[in-house]
Parts: sequence; structure tokens; C-alpha cells
Amino acid sequence: MASPQPQPQPQPSWLPPQLTTSPSPTIHALTTSLLPPLLSALSRIGLALRSSHRVSLAGSSNSFGDDQLNVDVACETIMRAALAQCPLVATASSEEDPEERQILHPDEPSENISSDERFSVAFDPLDGSSIIAANWTVGTIVGIWKGDSALGKDPSEQICSLMGVHGPRTTVIVAVREKAQDRGVCFELGLNDDGTVEVINHDVRLSAPPYKTRYFAPANLRYAAESPAYAALISSFITNKYTLRYCGGLVPDLGHILTKGHGVYVSPVAETSKAKLRRLYEVLPVGLVVECAGGKAVDEFGRRVLEKEVRGCDERGGIIFGNEDEVEEVVRVLFG
Amino acid sequence: MASPQPQPQPQPSWLPPQLTTSPSPTIHALTTSLLPPLLSALSRIGLALRSSHRVSLAGSSNSFGDDQLNVDVACETIMRAALAQCPLVATASSEEDPEERQILHPDEPSENISSDERFSVAFDPLDGSSIIAANWTVGTIVGIWKGDSALGKDPSEQICSLMGVHGPRTTVIVAVREKAQDRGVCFELGLNDDGTVEVINHDVRLSAPPYKTRYFAPANLRYAAESPAYAALISSFITNKYTLRYCGGLVPDLGHILTKGHGVYVSPVAETSKAKLRRLYEVLPVGLVVECAGGKAVDEFGRRVLEKEVRGCDERGGIIFGNEDEVEEVVRVLFG
Repeated sequence: MASPQPQPQPQPSWLPPQLTTSPSPTIHALTTSLLPPLLSALSRIGLALRSSHRVSLAGSSNSFGDDQLNVDVACETIMRAALAQCPLVATASSEEDPEERQILHPDEPSENISSDERFSVAFDPLDGSSIIAANWTVGTIVGIWKGDSALGKDPSEQICSLMGVHGPRTTVIVAVREKAQDRGVCFELGLNDDGTVEVINHDVRLSAPPYKTRYFAPANLRYAAESPAYAALISSFITNKYTLRYCGGLVPDLGHILTKGHGVYVSPVAETSKAKLRRLYEVLPVGLVVECAGGKAVDEFGRRVLEKEVRGCDERGGIIFGNEDEVEEVVRVLFG
Repeated sequence: MASPQPQPQPQPSWLPPQLTTSPSPTIHALTTSLLPPLLSALSRIGLALRSSHRVSLAGSSNSFGDDQLNVDVACETIMRAALAQCPLVATASSEEDPEERQILHPDEPSENISSDERFSVAFDPLDGSSIIAANWTVGTIVGIWKGDSALGKDPSEQICSLMGVHGPRTTVIVAVREKAQDRGVCFELGLNDDGTVEVINHDVRLSAPPYKTRYFAPANLRYAAESPAYAALISSFITNKYTLRYCGGLVPDLGHILTKGHGVYVSPVAETSKAKLRRLYEVLPVGLVVECAGGKAVDEFGRRVLEKEVRGCDERGGIIFGNEDEVEEVVRVLFG
């Protein structure tokens, strides 16, 4: 006996118009049944962080061997609870538990839901562990894939990503693109403690040249000591009077670029300087946001990050993202 | 007829032991009657920022000609309300209203309070306007001076400073040093929304070499394009594999160094690159925190920032601060 299908949900008032006008079943399911509980989870993570004054190691380590902080564990728990409540979520994996597993919904099994309304969720509950003790802004990253798995799929199947920004306020940047050829939409919301949601910007969009102020965010700057190309790039940023803004948190560094409408983030990779960013939990969700905001995101070889599928949860890579012309110039300097 | 003196207040439980054992009348007044309302104000600023999703210009500008944000105005109002409630505060000035003015307390005039229990407060209600829209951590800076004025006084009269850190949590770093020859104390507290205060660290202290990881925060990096000395310094940081952490907010950049126990912040000044930091609201309060944490803070000439008095509210300067040996090395490279 099949369980009842979930009741149709109303369209949230904070959605941008592009997503409310004759949405496909997939977009309708995503925006009415999956995004609302995820936004609530991000809001609860913000609340949990606010009282976590004594950030300490939880005494366990995740599968990548990183030390886990007690706040990592709290954020993971909040995300998992939200996914368990949402029958549309067929599978999930996270940076803290990097194996794609079925999410059980005993009352409403995901198998009973039409395949174009089922999703796989990949998330990093707390991005920025190295700066949380200093009380700097950190993030939560979520990638949402069509169907029952994110692995081995064309990256265009990742139709939505969210960057929860936990700073003085709790905000979220959302990107949605249903088909590879669409322009996509990127918008920013404010999440209040009482669960209400405010629209900050319905159309987050990187600027076109000429720019008033130009920003750069050089990750792994120490690598410039070994790489003449990276050193030349840094010199050219300085000579050309770019303003440095680099907090070392992927989400806030991305958020700064989107808020200012300009910036270029460079995380180079080399034999002596292994890639640290996870493609499934960090690189691909960021790639979707950047492209939906009109920018460009390429990997450590200068190729579009959203071109190559993710084969395993622990795959890592580099990323260069920002305004299209800036990224192209960085690629030219780094790769010739 | 003299108004009644304020009732003696109990010692707050969050004070470090150095400040509770036979405190002088000045320290007793400071810690029991002035710090508690200031911590409440910082907590309220955190609350105000949390709901300020639409950060926008307030349509006015302060006396320095900066554009004022609506959140600047809200934070200034909260601070002024706290000072008005505290009879020990004789005068105050702020970056938003940079003129030292008497604070009126009609019920308990400050003149009735013994001169060694009267204070002048200098504050920057919201430091980091350029990064607040991106939802990055920002700060509130408070300098507390003995007596009725901060101007023209020996900087050792600044006996306390507070760095409110508004990030995922609301925290505060407090430095207290009553006499120039004292070592001073630096401690960190967590401020909860309900007004309760938690001790995070009663003894904030910079590490001594050897360091595990070394951090640098180069402000005004564009100046390296003009200054061979600054360019050489940056190169040496890169060559020596220092880790870059620079968010561009003075308070969070200081907080990161204190949390990690290591780091050096460099804000150079030159003819072509005028000083932006205000000595009264930024440089001197930071200097006290750094020294009380066992570090060193020097100005753009390599002199201790706490050596020269502040002659006017709009005086500006550069600053280099962090672990003593690191600051000395920077001074050597920059000034020979």
C-alpha cells in the first residue's frame, strides 16, 4: 500500500519571480518542499553557533582525518534532522560523513515520490573551522542534485546550491538552474531567529567592467614561494592596486565578492600543495552560485568546474572564481 | 544639596582574579559600575546587527566625511544610551560624533563622584563598515580613560579598552591596566542575548617562539606597489610561509591574532597613502589590548603607540602589532 503523497505546499513569498511563474514539477518541489526546511536548518545553525562560546574539539575525527569541533557535530545534527523530515530527499552525504546514504522516511518513503521530485543532498555543515574560534564569519554549504545520487552525474544535475552565511546576521545565497543552458538565478535572503525570511537581493549579479574597486582573495598564498606563476599573479594584483580581502572561509570569501559585485578568488593546486577543497561539498556548489551570478568558476587546470562529474565523495580540487574577465586573466597568468 | 552617591555594586562573576583582589577605587568603579552596562550595550549591538539585513546608507555623513550606514547610527544610539545611564562617565566622544562632550546625568551628576572614579569614554560603535554588507564579522571599540578627558593625556591614563566582536557569536576582549608599569590583564568573554556573560578565556596571551603556524595581516597592500620596503616585507612573509589572514576589519583581525596566539598586523602609512585609522578610537585601544596580551604595538614610525598623547579626536596614524619578535622584525624591514 503506497503512503499518501506529500501535500502540495504554497510558494514561499521570498522566491524570486523567475521561480514562481509556471515552475516545472522539479522546481516546484524544490522551492516549496525542500528549500523551506533547509532555510530553517540554516537559521537553527546560526542559533546554535551563537551560544557556542567555548568552541572545542569534540574528540572525534571525520573520515578525512580532520579534527571535529563540537560545533561541527551540532551543525551536522541539525542538517540531518532537517533532511530526515523531508521525504523528497532520497540520499545525502556530508563532509562530516562523506558517504552517500539513503535517508529513511518511514511515513513517506522517497520511493513513492515521482523521480523528478526526488533529490540527493551534499553538504558541508560548517565551513571555516579554522576561523570559528576567532569568531569570524563561517558558512554552511549545500548542493542539491536531481534524482537519487550526486555521484557520476553530469554537474548540470546539481540544480540548486545554498551558501548559508553565519556572521553578525544569518543570511543565505541561493542559486537555482534547472537546465544547463539556462542563465539561472541567484538571490540572497536574510534568516531571522523566529523563522521568518527576508529578501535582501532577488538578483545577485557580478558587475561588468569598468570596476570602481577591484578585490582579490589569494588562498594558499604560501604557495607563491614555490610557484613563479602564482608569485607573478600576486605581484600583478598588487601593482594594479587590487584591494586584498581574504578571510580564509570559502563562503564568506564568496559572499564578499557577490556583495561587492567584484572579486577574484584563487585557490591554486600543485604537487607540493595538495588540493584541500572537496569538489562535492565545496567546489561544485560554489561553481553553481558563481555561474548563476554571471561569473566564471574554473578548476586548477583552468577548466570549468561544472564540467566534470564527481566520482567520489572525497574528490578534491582547486578553484578560481569571480568576474569572468578577471578569472580569464588569472588563467592566462597561471597557465599561459 | 548633593545627590546620593551611586550604591556600591557587587563584583561581576566573570572578572579575572587579578581584578577582584583588593582593587583600587578606580578599578572597583570601572569593573563594577562601568563594564557591566558597556557589556550590555555590546550585546544589544549584536542583537541590532542580527536583524539589520538591509544595510543601507543613512543619508547623513559623520564629521570625517564618511558615509554613515543605518547600522552605524543604531550602534551609536545604543552606546550613547548606555553611557547616559552611567554617572561615572563624565565625557564621551565617538568616531560618529568626534567631539569630547560632557555626558549629563541629571539625577546623579558626575561632579558629585570622586575624581578617581570618573571616566572619559572614546568609542567607535561599528568598526568595519566596508564589510558589514557582506555579513563579515565587525567590531565595536571602546577606550576608557581616567578622569574627565582623553585629550592631551598620557596614554597610560587609558586604563581599559574593549573590543566587541560581532560575528557568529557576540564576544568581547577586555584589557585593563591601571598603572603604566603593570603587566595588565586581557580576557575574553562571551555575551549572550539574555544578558548573561560567559568566560571564554581569563588570560588572553600571545605565544612565544617557536610558533607552529605564523600569520600575517597586511593592511593597505596596494601600497606595496609604491613602497619597495613594504613589497620586500610582503615577499618575506610569503617566502617564510606565513599564512595570510586579513579580513579588513581591525577588530576581527586583532581577534584572530589573539585567538591563535600569533600574528602580525601591518597598516603602513606614507605621503601617498594617508593614515586612515583614528588614534583615539582605534589605534590606542588596540595598543592597550595588544600590550596587555603580551604583544607589541608600534606606530608608522616604529614608536610605541601608547607613548604619544592624543591631541585631537581626528588624529590619525598607522599601526603594526602582534607578537613582539614579529613586530620588531617588521620594523627592521620597514625602517631599517
